[in-house]
Amino acid sequence: MRQEDPVATAAAAHRERDAMRRAVELAARGLGHTSPNPVVGCVVLDRTGRVVGEGWHKRAGGPHAEIHALAEAGDDARGGTAVVTLEPCNHTGRTGPCAEALLDAGISRVVYAVADPTPTAAGGAATLAAAGVDVAGGLLVEEAAAGNAAWLTAARLRRPHVHWKYAATLDGRTAAADGTSRWITSAASRADVHRLRAESDAVLVGSGTARADDPHLAVRGVPGATQPLRVVLDTAADAVTPGARVLDDTAPTVVFTAEDADARELEDAGVEVLRVPRAADGPGLDLAAVLDALYRRDVRSVLLEGGATLAAAFLSAGLLDRVTGYLAPVLLGAGPAALADAGIGTIGDARRLTLIETVRLGPDLRITAVPHTTEEP
Amino acid sequence: MRQEDPVATAAAAHRERDAMRRAVELAARGLGHTSPNPVVGCVVLDRTGRVVGEGWHKRAGGPHAEIHALAEAGDDARGGTAVVTLEPCNHTGRTGPCAEALLDAGISRVVYAVADPTPTAAGGAATLAAAGVDVAGGLLVEEAAAGNAAWLTAARLRRPHVHWKYAATLDGRTAAADGTSRWITSAASRADVHRLRAESDAVLVGSGTARADDPHLAVRGVPGATQPLRVVLDTAADAVTPGARVLDDTAPTVVFTAEDADARELEDAGVEVLRVPRAADGPGLDLAAVLDALYRRDVRSVLLEGGATLAAAFLSAGLLDRVTGYLAPVLLGAGPAALADAGIGTIGDARRLTLIETVRLGPDLRITAVPHTTEEP
Ligand SMILES: NC(=O)c1ccc[n+]([C@@H]2O[C@H](COP(=O)([O-])OP(=O)(O)OC[C@H]3O[C@@H](n4cnc5c(N)ncnc54)[C@H](OP(=O)(O)O)[C@@H]3O)[C@@H](O)[C@H]2O)c1
Ligand SMILES: NC(=O)c1ccc[n+]([C@@H]2O[C@H](COP(=O)([O-])OP(=O)(O)OC[C@H]3O[C@@H](n4cnc5c(N)ncnc54)[C@H](OP(=O)(O)O)[C@@H]3O)[C@@H](O)[C@H]2O)c1
Repeated sequence: MRQEDPVATAAAAHRERDAMRRAVELAARGLGHTSPNPVVGCVVLDRTGRVVGEGWHKRAGGPHAEIHALAEAGDDARGGTAVVTLEPCNHTGRTGPCAEALLDAGISRVVYAVADPTPTAAGGAATLAAAGVDVAGGLLVEEAAAGNAAWLTAARLRRPHVHWKYAATLDGRTAAADGTSRWITSAASRADVHRLRAESDAVLVGSGTARADDPHLAVRGVPGATQPLRVVLDTAADAVTPGARVLDDTAPTVVFTAEDADARELEDAGVEVLRVPRAADGPGLDLAAVLDALYRRDVRSVLLEGGATLAAAFLSAGLLDRVTGYLAPVLLGAGPAALADAGIGTIGDARRLTLIETVRLGPDLRITAVPHTTEEP
Repeated sequence: MRQEDPVATAAAAHRERDAMRRAVELAARGLGHTSPNPVVGCVVLDRTGRVVGEGWHKRAGGPHAEIHALAEAGDDARGGTAVVTLEPCNHTGRTGPCAEALLDAGISRVVYAVADPTPTAAGGAATLAAAGVDVAGGLLVEEAAAGNAAWLTAARLRRPHVHWKYAATLDGRTAAADGTSRWITSAASRADVHRLRAESDAVLVGSGTARADDPHLAVRGVPGATQPLRVVLDTAADAVTPGARVLDDTAPTVVFTAEDADARELEDAGVEVLRVPRAADGPGLDLAAVLDALYRRDVRSVLLEGGATLAAAFLSAGLLDRVTGYLAPVLLGAGPAALADAGIGTIGDARRLTLIETVRLGPDLRITAVPHTTEEP
């Protein structure tokens, strides 16, 4: 802190916290639009602590959050503080390094939440500090990291973050015994799924779902949404056929098949087919290869929409990073389960998660959980 | 309202609401101790509106809430107001009618929440009004009715209220594929089940659970709890055998069998065996006959602890009044489901409930739901 007066120092710290909270909010507006980049929010305070600029990273290839906020601040940025959810980048990407832009604008203090974990972009803090800027990291790091969870996971694991979504009854069924399932969950829950889709780079289903539901998988009802890439795993190229709803032109679509599959019908119809190896130890495709191919297409977040078989395969491969269940207050007593056999035979091998959120959606309950490694308390 | 001054009237109304809220709290202390009576709380205000007496119905056969509160108030009750969660009784039961006691104490106003639905006890309000007391009903009626939900349901249906409790994973499993289930839910959830038992008059399981788990079913860790009646449905009298934990002397136990079952081994061991007809249209016993026998033993609330087969039988008989699920953030992918086949074949026949509460219990989530048609708040 530059301030000497303890009251002024406390007031400045308070303003920076408020600004960071706002920056986290601003960052979230970019969800679904920025991959392969993170979402980032930035608030610029002038030398008296007044908010003079706000910005967020709106889309890949567009200006970074800092650039928007500095533009809005103009000359008021001089001697001021930039509060930003992610360490400013140091590399010259499509838009030039932010560290340099902050120096050019005469910013004298930079407060960031999360350090940039990517080798190419990191080092912005050091560059700024070397140029005499007062730099502090870690403010509201948990909130900011939560807002960027998918991108941070992807950066760490070098594969897309996988978020499994399911809708089920209280007794864990996704359909009745005769296969009927419209509608287990409410309109409010179904609308919320569209929000999840809009925040994801790709939406993925297995051939079972493609065959049973002929799903569309595009986003409806979310203004300004970037349509996610629609992805179907169809090992033998026999579930998705020309005319399937997932092949319309609302959003791009990729069908993954085995390397030896006969996908001529799809290819002749102009469908993009990606070939990956078969799974080494089970049916279907090698999921790591699927995720790798998606990562190389700049996909950082995948919404896995089912079905139970594919979810079980991701679970047993250790490839589920987040689970969202839409639980309807309904009892069925029979019908397919939300999750199929994942090779877990005894309670000691159960996959334990941590509940991070529960929200009422109309009559339903949405619960969100993430895997954990710690033992049950 | 007797008051003329509008400010004084508003203040009095406010004090009566506060007193009713307190009376609802006091009533809850009786849960599990009062059957076949309801839980009741009472607060006596003196003529200036000061709280001068509090009471609740502590156990069947003991004084009613009003009597406790009037005793504490003494002479200060004269000209005062009695605020009580249930319409004061009019009949001379084991303790004399409360209406008369209120008149004797010189109470000049009675405010109650819920009207008494039982033919023998009802009419207290009319008796009081006829004697010149100012009587008002319906204050905080929803809160008070919720606190007495089991008893009110029992009074309306003339059978015990049935509350099904289950513990399951997010994917609706109650055990792993090999049958292991210790512990799916946390210590916090398991402790909460003991609270539910303590609030219930009886705890009921099927022969499958008796055979698989040799459960104890008594309350542990709830200070001052009245032990519930332990009940096992064992059609052929071949699941519960002398030496079973449920037969120890911690709490009373009843084993229901078919009329033609050979239960000599149990009877010789001094176990209480009740015989009821077999179900007309399925396996096991006639559940309505079981509930009727329990009702005649003054049981007003039954906690149905499983398993999945019996829960399905209660559900399909329309005999579930409340469902509490302890959901552990765990995924299994295989293993027995929380609810077995209840004859629901298609989504239109799904049993729809209303979620009334969700509470975090350590790592778990407790959700409570009631059927759409139940009038329970
Ligand atoms: N309630 C919900 O949230 C929800 C969501 C989605 C679906 N559903 C329902 O779920 C049902 C379909 O589920 P499902 O379990 O039959 O099918 P699924 O999980 O959608 O697809 C499974 C198929 O994916 C293919 N696959 C490719 N790679 C795989 C791998 N590594 N591991 C496993 N499978 C792989 C396999 O078929 P190939 O070998 O032929 O490629 C496999 O049979 C439908 O009825 C649908 O309505 C419900
Ligand atoms: N996670 C949980 O919350 C929880 C709770 C309890 C139990 N469990 C587990 O559930 C398993 C046992 O469940 P279960 O489904 O096998 O057995 P269950 O539901 O406990 O008992 C079913 C048996 O009850 C008897 N019964 C009597 N009248 C009946 C009627 N009208 N309708 C249906 N059944 C009637 C029948 O046997 P008879 O004809 O022989 O009498 C029937 O087979 C155990 O493994 C236990 O650990 C889990």
